Amino acid sequence: MDAMADKAQLDAVLAQVDKDIDKSLERLFDLLRIPSISTDPAYAEHVRKAAEWLKRELDGLDFDAGVRATPGHPMVVAHGKGEGPHVLFYGHYDVQPVDPIELWDTDPFDPQLIDGRIRARGASDDKGQLMTFLEACRAWKAVTGKLPVKISILLEGEEESGSPSLPGFLEEAKAELKADVALVCDTDMWDPQTPSITTMLRGLVGEEVEITCASQDLHSGMFGNAARNPNQVLADIIASLRTPEGGVAVAGFYDGVAEVPESLKAQWATLGFDEKKFLGDVGLSLPAGEKGRPVLEQLWARPTCEINGMIGGYTGEGFKTVIPSKASAKISFRLVAGQDPKKIREAFRAHVRARVPADCEVTFKEHGGSPAIALPLDGKFLTAAKAALAEEWGKDTALTGSGGSIPVVGEFKRRLGMESLMIGFALIDDRIHSPNEKYNLESYHRGIRSWARVLASFA
Amino acid sequence: MDAMADKAQLDAVLAQVDKDIDKSLERLFDLLRIPSISTDPAYAEHVRKAAEWLKRELDGLDFDAGVRATPGHPMVVAHGKGEGPHVLFYGHYDVQPVDPIELWDTDPFDPQLIDGRIRARGASDDKGQLMTFLEACRAWKAVTGKLPVKISILLEGEEESGSPSLPGFLEEAKAELKADVALVCDTDMWDPQTPSITTMLRGLVGEEVEITCASQDLHSGMFGNAARNPNQVLADIIASLRTPEGGVAVAGFYDGVAEVPESLKAQWATLGFDEKKFLGDVGLSLPAGEKGRPVLEQLWARPTCEINGMIGGYTGEGFKTVIPSKASAKISFRLVAGQDPKKIREAFRAHVRARVPADCEVTFKEHGGSPAIALPLDGKFLTAAKAALAEEWGKDTALTGSGGSIPVVGEFKRRLGMESLMIGFALIDDRIHSPNEKYNLESYHRGIRSWARVLASFA
Repeated sequence: MDAMADKAQLDAVLAQVDKDIDKSLERLFDLLRIPSISTDPAYAEHVRKAAEWLKRELDGLDFDAGVRATPGHPMVVAHGKGEGPHVLFYGHYDVQPVDPIELWDTDPFDPQLIDGRIRARGASDDKGQLMTFLEACRAWKAVTGKLPVKISILLEGEEESGSPSLPGFLEEAKAELKADVALVCDTDMWDPQTPSITTMLRGLVGEEVEITCASQDLHSGMFGNAARNPNQVLADIIASLRTPEGGVAVAGFYDGVAEVPESLKAQWATLGFDEKKFLGDVGLSLPAGEKGRPVLEQLWARPTCEINGMIGGYTGEGFKTVIPSKASAKISFRLVAGQDPKKIREAFRAHVRARVPADCEVTFKEHGGSPAIALPLDGKFLTAAKAALAEEWGKDTALTGSGGSIPVVGEFKRRLGMESLMIGFALIDDRIHSPNEKYNLESYHRGIRSWARVLASFA
Repeated sequence: MDAMADKAQLDAVLAQVDKDIDKSLERLFDLLRIPSISTDPAYAEHVRKAAEWLKRELDGLDFDAGVRATPGHPMVVAHGKGEGPHVLFYGHYDVQPVDPIELWDTDPFDPQLIDGRIRARGASDDKGQLMTFLEACRAWKAVTGKLPVKISILLEGEEESGSPSLPGFLEEAKAELKADVALVCDTDMWDPQTPSITTMLRGLVGEEVEITCASQDLHSGMFGNAARNPNQVLADIIASLRTPEGGVAVAGFYDGVAEVPESLKAQWATLGFDEKKFLGDVGLSLPAGEKGRPVLEQLWARPTCEINGMIGGYTGEGFKTVIPSKASAKISFRLVAGQDPKKIREAFRAHVRARVPADCEVTFKEHGGSPAIALPLDGKFLTAAKAALAEEWGKDTALTGSGGSIPVVGEFKRRLGMESLMIGFALIDDRIHSPNEKYNLESYHRGIRSWARVLASFA
């Protein structure tokens, strides 16, 4: 087919999406009516019902679909018959609990369309989002009789309760699920006008450190000055973790960390991120961290070290003149591409050990470690999807980062060796996990159109 | 009387002490049999009984004695008829609870003399000690028919439960109790051969500091690096409190702090204090604090800053990637002579405020403040008592310090403008507050002789 024919075909698919939008909405409402709350065992049958509903929908789209057992709630796995590049679409069909129910204006499982907003638990997170993809497949099927590429689908039923079965399931179904790229639909647009692909997620190293000085708690009058105080030792160590310029002072910490490409920096600069508002919303006004680096860059593309907890000595009411035996802290490092979690952990431990007096002890406890995710910005799927989204929204696609992690993306990378394009149409005001969750009808409608275009761009 | 006659008289008094020691011991046993546990309301009648027992003893020694009501347990106040300098003797007749009772080898309120050790609750702390003074008065009375100086006595019944009624009582009885010097018998000898007078007690400033950064707890992935972390701010502040040489870095902290006189340093050097053992007993081997200063000097004569408690963020099991809104610490300063608690508090607060970022908040809470106590080393009472004790023990009297405080000494100084000589015959192994508390018969016998001599030296 030539480019003209391609365009005509895509236009027909998009026209089909538009024509069918009311029915698309009805189908979403059907799914939203199922209270598939994964964290509450009382809802287990509803979770299963949602999985079976999805299997039937996928069967109807000529997928080879199944509800697969796990130690927890089932996975829905489906394989399409298309040709060409192989993509794995991921979404989740379970939802958060609805408490406090009294703050909902309507029944969370009786979806309503109100002023262009679809209101229900799961409307945005993640039933609405996953249905954008299924409805795009439906339109392609309706117009062309087939899917434009080879599509596999993985829909999880435990995302809202920590994905306990996911790693084991991926390990077992590795061969079946490995595709050329994953499409993960659980993220936001930058703003209602700007389509986004999240290309960077920070990694994590969690450490717990405990300093022991004296063999018992001491009276600070009797021993103060001459006996080592682990609170002081720990505070000195924590203070030593940052340079006067706000960077992390652990030796080798920035080894392998690349500067953000100028092109990406330039794109971020166009996003109109409001540092003052971002900090002001949580009662701050002065950026911390590395001096001279914009907040967005610090959050998305710079590693950090944060003291998540620290405790030592007497912390109750009143006062106790004690020099404690022990003090401890929970410390996490957020990593970016180029940093090896193992090396960072070792470098941190060496940094601490060098600062513990010879007659004191230090112990470390590991609390998780995962590398950062960074998509190559010139990858063919990313390039294609970026253009397709821009076409739909009439605006350049923002390539964004996220300071936190999305576990499934790490799992795909680690276990299946597969990159993920994180594309979603949720908005920051969708109130996910909160009462009156909503998904804009525009998010739904143009989300379906967006996926129709993205699939075309991969073909 | 000339010096020869003085000596003959004192020798007669000492001979009387020796002759009467068995009866002195019986009288102590009578007092020890009264379970005057002040902290347990069930024993209130016994506390009163002990007070009345003491009043009777003092009446028998021609004191004008009374049991005085307070909001808590009573005080015993007695005034003797002697002439010359006026001394106020202080002791306490209440005792600690006896738990864990199963660890006692004998009934704590059935005193026993075993291998030269008087075993009972209160044998050392403080019934045995206070009786050394009363028995010395008795010997003087027996030999000369009167007391060698004007003696007032204050015996407290709430020392082991925090002396809640003491300040108010002193305030009311100020005129009655103000003497030329106080004698406080609640301290140790340096070792079993070396008599001691404690001449220095460190003062205290207690502060609680709370740092608030963001208005709510934040996700350290989403905000880490750009949002100020109060744990880090607090740790930086705590680290800044010490200089690289181990001193306290608060501006003006050492203003007015004098070096220990060379003569006192020389005397301390003869005490044979074993730094290694002192630290080794609590599992340490490297002195902290100011580099180059002996441990004893650091404990007795140098001010310090200790972090008694600190807390911020998540400190439970596992890990939580939070940037907390708040972090706090309890910090105490031990002061020496020349330091003003108010000025130290203000200097500390200024030090902290200068290090809190402009968009964060700091609040302070005051937890007590008292200046250090330091007796003038050339005072006439100290000089006399020092010589008298040396005479009894055949060894120079050690002038010691204490890193902690003895509240009554501060109260005497503050409310009555009266210095205290802290003289006691307890030993470090007396197991006060523990099962099998004991007081050596030698402590008791030579304690009585020591007071007989000290009173003579004041005459």
